[in-house]
Amino acid sequence: MAGGDGLFVRNTWYVCAWSDEVGARPLQRWICGEPIVLWRRSDNRVAALADRCPHRDAPLSLGSVVGDDLQCGYHGLRFDADGVCVGVPGGERVPSGACTRAYPVVERWGWVFIWPGSADLADPALIPDYHWKDDPAWTGKGETLPVKAGYGLLRDNLLDLSHAHFVHRQTLATDGVIEFPIVTEVHDDRLTVLRDMHDIAPSPFFRRMGGFTGNVDHRQEIVFTPPGNIVIKLRVADAKQANHVVEMRVLNALTPETENTSLYFWSLVRNTSLDDSQLTDWMFEANRSTFDEDVAVIEPQQAMLERAPPPARPIRWSVDKGVTQAQRWVQRLIAEEAGNAGSV
Amino acid sequence: MAGGDGLFVRNTWYVCAWSDEVGARPLQRWICGEPIVLWRRSDNRVAALADRCPHRDAPLSLGSVVGDDLQCGYHGLRFDADGVCVGVPGGERVPSGACTRAYPVVERWGWVFIWPGSADLADPALIPDYHWKDDPAWTGKGETLPVKAGYGLLRDNLLDLSHAHFVHRQTLATDGVIEFPIVTEVHDDRLTVLRDMHDIAPSPFFRRMGGFTGNVDHRQEIVFTPPGNIVIKLRVADAKQANHVVEMRVLNALTPETENTSLYFWSLVRNTSLDDSQLTDWMFEANRSTFDEDVAVIEPQQAMLERAPPPARPIRWSVDKGVTQAQRWVQRLIAEEAGNAGSV
Amino acid sequence: MAGGDGLFVRNTWYVCAWSDEVGARPLQRWICGEPIVLWRRSDNRVAALADRCPHRDAPLSLGSVVGDDLQCGYHGLRFDADGVCVGVPGGERVPSGACTRAYPVVERWGWVFIWPGSADLADPALIPDYHWKDDPAWTGKGETLPVKAGYGLLRDNLLDLSHAHFVHRQTLATDGVIEFPIVTEVHDDRLTVLRDMHDIAPSPFFRRMGGFTGNVDHRQEIVFTPPGNIVIKLRVADAKQANHVVEMRVLNALTPETENTSLYFWSLVRNTSLDDSQLTDWMFEANRSTFDEDVAVIEPQQAMLERAPPPARPIRWSVDKGVTQAQRWVQRLIAEEAGNAGSV
Repeated sequence: MAGGDGLFVRNTWYVCAWSDEVGARPLQRWICGEPIVLWRRSDNRVAALADRCPHRDAPLSLGSVVGDDLQCGYHGLRFDADGVCVGVPGGERVPSGACTRAYPVVERWGWVFIWPGSADLADPALIPDYHWKDDPAWTGKGETLPVKAGYGLLRDNLLDLSHAHFVHRQTLATDGVIEFPIVTEVHDDRLTVLRDMHDIAPSPFFRRMGGFTGNVDHRQEIVFTPPGNIVIKLRVADAKQANHVVEMRVLNALTPETENTSLYFWSLVRNTSLDDSQLTDWMFEANRSTFDEDVAVIEPQQAMLERAPPPARPIRWSVDKGVTQAQRWVQRLIAEEAGNAGSV
Repeated sequence: MAGGDGLFVRNTWYVCAWSDEVGARPLQRWICGEPIVLWRRSDNRVAALADRCPHRDAPLSLGSVVGDDLQCGYHGLRFDADGVCVGVPGGERVPSGACTRAYPVVERWGWVFIWPGSADLADPALIPDYHWKDDPAWTGKGETLPVKAGYGLLRDNLLDLSHAHFVHRQTLATDGVIEFPIVTEVHDDRLTVLRDMHDIAPSPFFRRMGGFTGNVDHRQEIVFTPPGNIVIKLRVADAKQANHVVEMRVLNALTPETENTSLYFWSLVRNTSLDDSQLTDWMFEANRSTFDEDVAVIEPQQAMLERAPPPARPIRWSVDKGVTQAQRWVQRLIAEEAGNAGSV
Repeated sequence: MAGGDGLFVRNTWYVCAWSDEVGARPLQRWICGEPIVLWRRSDNRVAALADRCPHRDAPLSLGSVVGDDLQCGYHGLRFDADGVCVGVPGGERVPSGACTRAYPVVERWGWVFIWPGSADLADPALIPDYHWKDDPAWTGKGETLPVKAGYGLLRDNLLDLSHAHFVHRQTLATDGVIEFPIVTEVHDDRLTVLRDMHDIAPSPFFRRMGGFTGNVDHRQEIVFTPPGNIVIKLRVADAKQANHVVEMRVLNALTPETENTSLYFWSLVRNTSLDDSQLTDWMFEANRSTFDEDVAVIEPQQAMLERAPPPARPIRWSVDKGVTQAQRWVQRLIAEEAGNAGSV
């Protein structure tokens, strides 16, 4: 799609699936309000087409993979990975120029990235960095969380971790997240929110995960790459024993399905105790509970945005700085794409 | 809210809860299309705020009561009963003027009344009279009935009791309600619909409740106070034995949640056999069944209003007089509020 | 309704019920976006009125049949089969001219046909031909299939049987439907799509139903009468033994309930083995499974039409000829009715 729709950033890479979800059986995903069908070809590459057959509008994902092509389950049209119609039933000639929309797709680090914007701008160099996901020095686990809220609310949530004190009392709560100030920095390609907490009590999570008994120095560095990529780099060290240290990365790929639903792809990785699968499972379960707590606030928040009158005057203070900067950045990108409608 | 929205009468008191529903745990209610959170303070007074946090739009009702204040469950902002933001986390200064909307609330007779209009017009003297609810000379029981229909349809239902003959065959049906004419009177503050039925067979309900075996004189006086308050005063006396008489009040507080959903607060009280709790329970259950019969007509009626083409020419006759007058009154109030938009 | 609404063909007969569905208990149906109540009078004729009472908008179908009239279950208004209000409760005079809309109805061949357009144009001679349904030379069985899709998608499905090869692999699939071309013919009152398949393997259905072991000559003649009537005439003969032949009629009456829901009345009849009720049941069950397969494509197709961006360029080829002609015909009828708004 040339030009923006005013709703989504389209000229960007979004995670749309885990590698092991895509095989010879078509998979439907909605990205930026569009239905997309994914399948894997014999050379192992992933293909992605618009999931509405240009013949009679049936979802191609109800069809089947035949050779490397996708065959519609209604009247049998066949499309290759480029969206070219390569066959109509009955030995008839394919109408000249018959095709459907193909989306650029790149598979990396166990995730499938898709580009819902102009295909000629789809530069793999722009794929956001989630290399920890299959770096042998790191290990961990994650999943996809479907959320009935716009992906922006997930971004806001992650860019202001002070909520942990209130939302995650049983897991991530530390007094530190509300007592230590944040430092936000805007770079060309990313925004960072840094909070250095010195000599604080460890959260229940880090007591268990890192085996800390006394106070810790806890550093949170949130790295935001627009529009929906957030890597949280966590470093926790014993306040009295600087070499007792654990590091974690919370990888968050936030993908808009529609204006008010999202797919939240996350993975939690650490660089210690790499062989401890029990620890992996425990961390995964703990994080899953934590994210469920977030969703329990974010979905009602979305409902309020849709149904309730807006406040006469929103309240903002220092803690909102990162959130506000990120929101503006994304709005600017959307506006730029909309303005570029004619030129792309 | 200054000025009206053209949908609801706002400068009025609506019942929003039973006293025993409001405690130290926040309670969400929708009134006139707005989400409201209620809680009870240590001095026993009830507080009501807009239920959308002006920070990040989460429902405050997901938070918790801390001291006399309400604390948002997302990022911890605290609001007092006047809607003033009295704390943000981390010891930061509260931004100047930070506040949310507070609603005037008065608790009376076991119900909580709320004023969704301009707070400076909220005169407790305007609270509609439901004193029977905790008058020691009366006893009874009621509940809240959530209805998937605009509250106006409930009002229409109660102002034309001729429906009892058709809808409530097993309980309230008497031939009288369709054979005796009504007299409607419009006063400054109320409208009354009177039906005096002489020497009629008692309904199944009054046979049981009043122990009538022969014919009765049955007087229905419906007192409507706009926009949604209806007290039905019932007096049934043995037609041959004038001192065998029972009186009842059906208290109906109709509250608009949204344009097409309502909360129907009702209570049924009598001034005889005050200690007969079995009778209370029987009357409550009988009335509940009766109102379920109403809802079984009113919700499909609402669906027709939303989906079906309107009739070319509505049918009205004498029985509709009270309903029509009440509808016009409420429409006039809504129009007046809309016209006052600038001046309040 | 004089003039069209731009959505439906109204000046036409639609099947709205099976004869045995209509009795002394009111039956609600939605036709062309309008709620209709049907009941059967003592002289056995079927009556149909708008199902929204012109008094207080309750569905008349919640009422009851009293004598030959329909009595509203809310306030007791009575309407005769012509829609005239013949009684209000309490012995009051019926307001002059009080009435509701009546719809022309004709019962034929075990189906009830309704005319949702201008009553003065409702000529029974225009009822589409489904005489096979109770012709003693034919036997069979059918049912009503409610479909969450516009009826036009069902019409498109039936006018292009090439889908059988892909959708109905277990039942009707033959290579023939995609290998032999179609011939479409437009007549004054109908459109036909003919496919003559010579010397092909019989489908699983015909192997069982007709007992064919070798190849067959299989003729499909689809007769479309706008806007939603399709009779499929099937003739299958042994390719080597011309007198071993079976004939079937698939009777399809497609009725729009609303813009995006339909009632699909179908019956499958044959002119052989008339007394074999086991065969009737088997054919019925097989066809029902087949239609379930269709619905499994058509409902997602409807969802795509509503939610997904349209294809840049639809694909059409020879197989679509009948579908396209039928669509244009129906669009022309709708446009003609809309244009006639003032004159009818």
